[in-house]
Amino acid sequence: MKYKALNFADKFQRFSDHWSPRVIAEMNNYQFKLAKVQGDFVWHSHAETDEAFVVIEGELCIEFRDGEVNLSSGEMYVVPKGVEHRPRADGEVKLLLIEPRGVVNTEGAGGELTADNDVWV
Amino acid sequence: MKYKALNFADKFQRFSDHWSPRVIAEMNNYQFKLAKVQGDFVWHSHAETDEAFVVIEGELCIEFRDGEVNLSSGEMYVVPKGVEHRPRADGEVKLLLIEPRGVVNTEGAGGELTADNDVWV
Repeated sequence: MKYKALNFADKFQRFSDHWSPRVIAEMNNYQFKLAKVQGDFVWHSHAETDEAFVVIEGELCIEFRDGEVNLSSGEMYVVPKGVEHRPRADGEVKLLLIEPRGVVNTEGAGGELTADNDVWV
Repeated sequence: MKYKALNFADKFQRFSDHWSPRVIAEMNNYQFKLAKVQGDFVWHSHAETDEAFVVIEGELCIEFRDGEVNLSSGEMYVVPKGVEHRPRADGEVKLLLIEPRGVVNTEGAGGELTADNDVWV
């Protein structure tokens, strides 16, 4: 089939590890990534870019130094560049992330939750 | 509330016209737009950019000159720049579009379905 829909549920079935985004599509120099997350991520910020979070399933909290935003399925938020944030999920959350190609998930913070980049599913 | 989730269902309740995208968020120089569509759009292409379609509700067909792709809720597709396409929907479809700021919906084709740009909801 020359033109094939990208199905989120199908793609999510293909991996199970947390905090390890998988690329499913590119738009110009941006990537669409799916991720499963659970627990606390690390405080970090992206100096060069905004970052968009779309919740597909579950309940995500994004903490900021002076507040937080809670996202459910069918909700999104764009974290502005340079703003420190920490995603947190009590239960497993399925996410769609949109950001420029090459962004590292723990940028500026590093640590064991740093994921390989540009891994497709 | 300083940090507020963008809720697709809430935003969709605020407009009813078809083929008239509403901006809900920006990420760098890109925009997230919601649109309600029904019927046949016009053949067109975007010379300078890819264009991402995410179906929130309903069934969307994107026709190409040599094929088509059918998208349901939870599916997406990125139309490459320069590729002629025509979105089509038998019933009403609720869409999330992601593309650079300034893209005109009927680019290169024009006509009565050309929507105002940069209208927020």
